[in-house]
Amino acid sequence: ATGEPVANANDDPLPSWNKCAARTDILDFVACATDADCPNFIPPAERIAVFDNDGTLWCEQPVYVQMQFVFDRVRQQAAQHPEWKTAEPFAAVLRHDIKALAAAGEKGMLQLLAATHTGMTTADFEQIVTQWLATARHPKFDRPYTELVYQPMLEVLAFLRSKGFKAYIVSGGGIEFMRPFTERVYGIPPEQVIGSSGKLKYELRDAEPVLMRLAELDFVDDKTGKPVGIQKLIGRRPVFAFGNSDGDYEMLRWTTAGKGSRIGLIVHHTDAEREYAYDRDSHVGRLARALDEAPDRGWSVVDMRRDWKTIFPPVAK
Amino acid sequence: ATGEPVANANDDPLPSWNKCAARTDILDFVACATDADCPNFIPPAERIAVFDNDGTLWCEQPVYVQMQFVFDRVRQQAAQHPEWKTAEPFAAVLRHDIKALAAAGEKGMLQLLAATHTGMTTADFEQIVTQWLATARHPKFDRPYTELVYQPMLEVLAFLRSKGFKAYIVSGGGIEFMRPFTERVYGIPPEQVIGSSGKLKYELRDAEPVLMRLAELDFVDDKTGKPVGIQKLIGRRPVFAFGNSDGDYEMLRWTTAGKGSRIGLIVHHTDAEREYAYDRDSHVGRLARALDEAPDRGWSVVDMRRDWKTIFPPVAK
Ligand SMILES: [Ca+2]
Ligand SMILES: [Ca+2]
Repeated sequence: ATGEPVANANDDPLPSWNKCAARTDILDFVACATDADCPNFIPPAERIAVFDNDGTLWCEQPVYVQMQFVFDRVRQQAAQHPEWKTAEPFAAVLRHDIKALAAAGEKGMLQLLAATHTGMTTADFEQIVTQWLATARHPKFDRPYTELVYQPMLEVLAFLRSKGFKAYIVSGGGIEFMRPFTERVYGIPPEQVIGSSGKLKYELRDAEPVLMRLAELDFVDDKTGKPVGIQKLIGRRPVFAFGNSDGDYEMLRWTTAGKGSRIGLIVHHTDAEREYAYDRDSHVGRLARALDEAPDRGWSVVDMRRDWKTIFPPVAK
Repeated sequence: ATGEPVANANDDPLPSWNKCAARTDILDFVACATDADCPNFIPPAERIAVFDNDGTLWCEQPVYVQMQFVFDRVRQQAAQHPEWKTAEPFAAVLRHDIKALAAAGEKGMLQLLAATHTGMTTADFEQIVTQWLATARHPKFDRPYTELVYQPMLEVLAFLRSKGFKAYIVSGGGIEFMRPFTERVYGIPPEQVIGSSGKLKYELRDAEPVLMRLAELDFVDDKTGKPVGIQKLIGRRPVFAFGNSDGDYEMLRWTTAGKGSRIGLIVHHTDAEREYAYDRDSHVGRLARALDEAPDRGWSVVDMRRDWKTIFPPVAK
């Protein structure tokens, strides 16, 4: 995955898309936004596009990639923590007990995040994530997670970039879990990544300044947090929003309620064969309200099975 | 002020600068950073420059511009708040009692900020700031504050931009107090502004989504907060940092401690005639430690009186 479309962009900027309403909506929106004679022209500085990450740009099943990272890190660190064998929620991870993990709830998740994401410098964490992403493989597809990005979405990102749009990721995932790979995989630089975060602390180590990752939550970039995160980091309202779950509902509302031309889009996971099929009842990426309100709000829904010719980029030779 | 240099950038990108060590350092740094054959070449994506605002890009005396905004807003709102006549710190503002204000300390300042900066939507606050900036004038220079930006610094910003650098403001001032003018005045878009902030809340008003400004501090972007703010919003270490006070000390340390080619610069206010002269004992923009350590740390110090041909842009016709 390089963030560039497979086919020649001059022929068709979205070659992995079948002809469908969402594709037409994207092409029409961009054509008008970049045409100075169109009443819906958007000045380049205001061409801000926001994309959810999990389930919108890359695969989020059977569990969020960052969750798998947490599990793997707990197992890797277990030798240095013999007490984890009997202490929940760590013991549940070690014995692969999904039920006990679910029972540990949000409090358990925060304990796991603290143990695996904090107490090190930002530079050390970046290295840990980078190394894990280089070796971890998806259980169903047996490919690195960074190859399980959606080829049709890479084409949308490249198309928008070629038309002067600035694309941001706005994800409930950890901001510093994403930044190590978004530039290489999506063509999105770290400064265009918005996510959940813990508090940081500047301090000196051997007279060198470092930023320590503290075990204190700073910001949750999900649901009503998404418009807040957009305001905090971008400071202006997007014109283009793409999500896949009810966690994106407020981001879609916030984006499409703005004055002038706006577009909201939703990836609907309908392809049990090539990827996964899920919506209302999924433990991950639950999609109900946003799907129900999409027609009235004018949001385009992508039917993954029907609208996408391919799901993932070809395996690198 | 348009963010563009007055003279032809082909002749001299910094025409308002006299020949001096800081000017040479900037030109040498940028020449090497943009020369692929230079050992200190910096890839375009990593050309991140950070600038303090108050006292580095615009005048911060006799009080911070945002403080003057607070005072003016309290006076404008006083008719709706008869209780302020006798309640500190509001009464102190109304009777122009600087001593009582100082005595009210940080707690008093937070009360004033809450009363003038919160309880409205982000859109309403933007409009309030824009209107104030359009009419308020500096007591000494009798010009709008947005004209009291430093012409030599506008030239540095334009020069860096022309060389593929992305310039960010990293200020202790309020992020949404700056965003309404930075694009027009400095050529810096809202998404490249980092500052202090209060918490925001997404809610519906008459079925329309808004972001409310809450009376709860979210982040203080000063001193050790500056490297933290840089990491939160940019996610990579800058290569170029320009400040003017000890509030920028940690930002200068963080920037210049990075691997490869880095540059740190300090504006020293030495011009009592054309602007103000202050450093160690100033109540605003105190500069002591960063000045003392500059030689050992290789930071360039700009002597405003000696190094700058002009201070402010010419008065618009
Ligand atoms: Ca999602
Ligand atoms: Ca300053």
